[in-house]
Amino acid sequence: MELVNVRFDDDKSAVVILDQTKLPNAVEYERVTSAEQVFEAIKKLKVRGAPAIGIFAAMGLAVCARDIYGDREEFLSSLKNVAEYINCSRPTAVNLSKALARMVKKAESIAGTEPFDRAEILVKLCDEAQKIQDEDVEMCRKISEYGLSLIKDGDGILTHCNAGPLATSRYGTGLGSIILGCERGMKLSCYVDETRPLLQGARITALELKNAGADITLICDNMASVVMKEGKINAVFVGCDRVAANGDTANKIGTSGAAILAKYYGVPFYVFCPSSTVDFSCKSGDDIRIELRSSDEIRTLYFKEPSAPEVECYNPSFDVTDNSLITAIITENGICYPPYSENLYGIFKQ
Amino acid sequence: MELVNVRFDDDKSAVVILDQTKLPNAVEYERVTSAEQVFEAIKKLKVRGAPAIGIFAAMGLAVCARDIYGDREEFLSSLKNVAEYINCSRPTAVNLSKALARMVKKAESIAGTEPFDRAEILVKLCDEAQKIQDEDVEMCRKISEYGLSLIKDGDGILTHCNAGPLATSRYGTGLGSIILGCERGMKLSCYVDETRPLLQGARITALELKNAGADITLICDNMASVVMKEGKINAVFVGCDRVAANGDTANKIGTSGAAILAKYYGVPFYVFCPSSTVDFSCKSGDDIRIELRSSDEIRTLYFKEPSAPEVECYNPSFDVTDNSLITAIITENGICYPPYSENLYGIFKQ
Repeated sequence: MELVNVRFDDDKSAVVILDQTKLPNAVEYERVTSAEQVFEAIKKLKVRGAPAIGIFAAMGLAVCARDIYGDREEFLSSLKNVAEYINCSRPTAVNLSKALARMVKKAESIAGTEPFDRAEILVKLCDEAQKIQDEDVEMCRKISEYGLSLIKDGDGILTHCNAGPLATSRYGTGLGSIILGCERGMKLSCYVDETRPLLQGARITALELKNAGADITLICDNMASVVMKEGKINAVFVGCDRVAANGDTANKIGTSGAAILAKYYGVPFYVFCPSSTVDFSCKSGDDIRIELRSSDEIRTLYFKEPSAPEVECYNPSFDVTDNSLITAIITENGICYPPYSENLYGIFKQ
Repeated sequence: MELVNVRFDDDKSAVVILDQTKLPNAVEYERVTSAEQVFEAIKKLKVRGAPAIGIFAAMGLAVCARDIYGDREEFLSSLKNVAEYINCSRPTAVNLSKALARMVKKAESIAGTEPFDRAEILVKLCDEAQKIQDEDVEMCRKISEYGLSLIKDGDGILTHCNAGPLATSRYGTGLGSIILGCERGMKLSCYVDETRPLLQGARITALELKNAGADITLICDNMASVVMKEGKINAVFVGCDRVAANGDTANKIGTSGAAILAKYYGVPFYVFCPSSTVDFSCKSGDDIRIELRSSDEIRTLYFKEPSAPEVECYNPSFDVTDNSLITAIITENGICYPPYSENLYGIFKQ
């Protein structure tokens, strides 16, 4: 059963998404046709993973454009409003704003030619969104090949959260190397952090790696220290939601902790980062806005009764891993080593 | 509502325990009268926390002794068999074996006088078990006073798992200082690790500290790095299940990770350790046997449907924190600083 996170419906009247919040207990697809639905699907993490959010936002904007009318100015102005609205659904993943900006720019470019041809714009917006996804597939393949060069047969790999096909496109980033390695007959032992509070590791990474044929062991996040100490881990593989110009990396909450443990135990810590996830406008991690989410995501797992006490929770969705903790950043253009302030720019602006 | 984890029934025909697995959603007490029930209650964590397990095992043995008959040799032999059986319920907490050994020794001592008086032994075993609990109350008060000297008004404290009244006796160890501080009008901000997989932090520590009047914030275990980075934490307070002669400390899984983070961020890391929890027969953490528990404790929280994939879990219940990561070990005899190999012995064998 191949799961597809985001795709256009055949006639491009809707985006069909897999509701990832229901995994692994149910596989349910949904048709999304309005800006409100796009916003909700991102906000509620039905679609998640920085690259997938970017693709979905682009496709969603292309579909929403079908409901926008008026002359050139009216059309572009409404399109920008919809893009800005969708962009507010989540603040940390940079792919969201980048993809939307690219779509708006595309619309402006086509609208710039005479005569104003709304139908033409609608077609080209769909093409552009599809292109973003196609590029992501190609990026995943490249990044997975580079990542694979860092591990060998029999290695143990710790994963945190999910940077697999459902967070991106075919293969994924962080998990892509593992999936590719399995395809080529390598035996890899994966220790999968369950990734509280929303358990993307347990629910999604475990599923994807099991389907790929990896030997997987699910652990609670707080067991990462033990498995590293016991020598089970040769490398930590994580994705990212936004990487600053100096290599500081925002990724799922708990990533910075895993990186500190890896440093302590002398385990290499690798960030898988497509160009779409780098934000050179952020000088360092201090410039990255971290999304805070509801207490309920933590509490409702176990406080079942109304009689249970009210407890305040702190629920940052991401944290920033200092660049000094990162062994290398794997990109579709190659493997980037420190100093990141120089080398990240070099690898992407060549 | 004061919750009492373990106590004798009025006529000492049973031990009455609070089923802590049901907290905070339900407060249910149970009467325990057989060795099998004692074993199950410890194994299933209805009673948990190293000191509380020791107290409960002692009381349980005293109650079970009422069903043992025969002459001196038969009685003592059967009592030892029951003690050995109960001792197998959990391997890591040293208090369990220590308390049972003390009870058996007491029985042997009384049985050594002529004539053999079974009724006298039964009474004295109850007295001895009660004494173990009374000593624990006194120990908690002292250890809490010492711990309180390490923090000041306004401090932020990170806790992991539960070392409060329900894990010990009145006050607790790790939480005792916080509870005592609150009684004296101090304002303390506690960040409570939920402590996967069984959530003792979320279910029990949060409850106890809230009742004490502390300002509490519940976090997922993987958020400890962020709250330390944000400067919210002035000290980490944890209990322990077994401390080796060199200070290496077995405590709830995740403790070693929290200690590594604390070291990285320069936050003091304190272990609260009553004398009953030190095991000088273990030279280092390598000699401490770590209990492995069922995969189901991890999986069943979210794999609701039979269709969900079978995933192997690794579920060590404890980990060992290297003594080099521990700022000080707080005991009822005072605060012990490194080098622990010398100073632990000195503080307890004086």
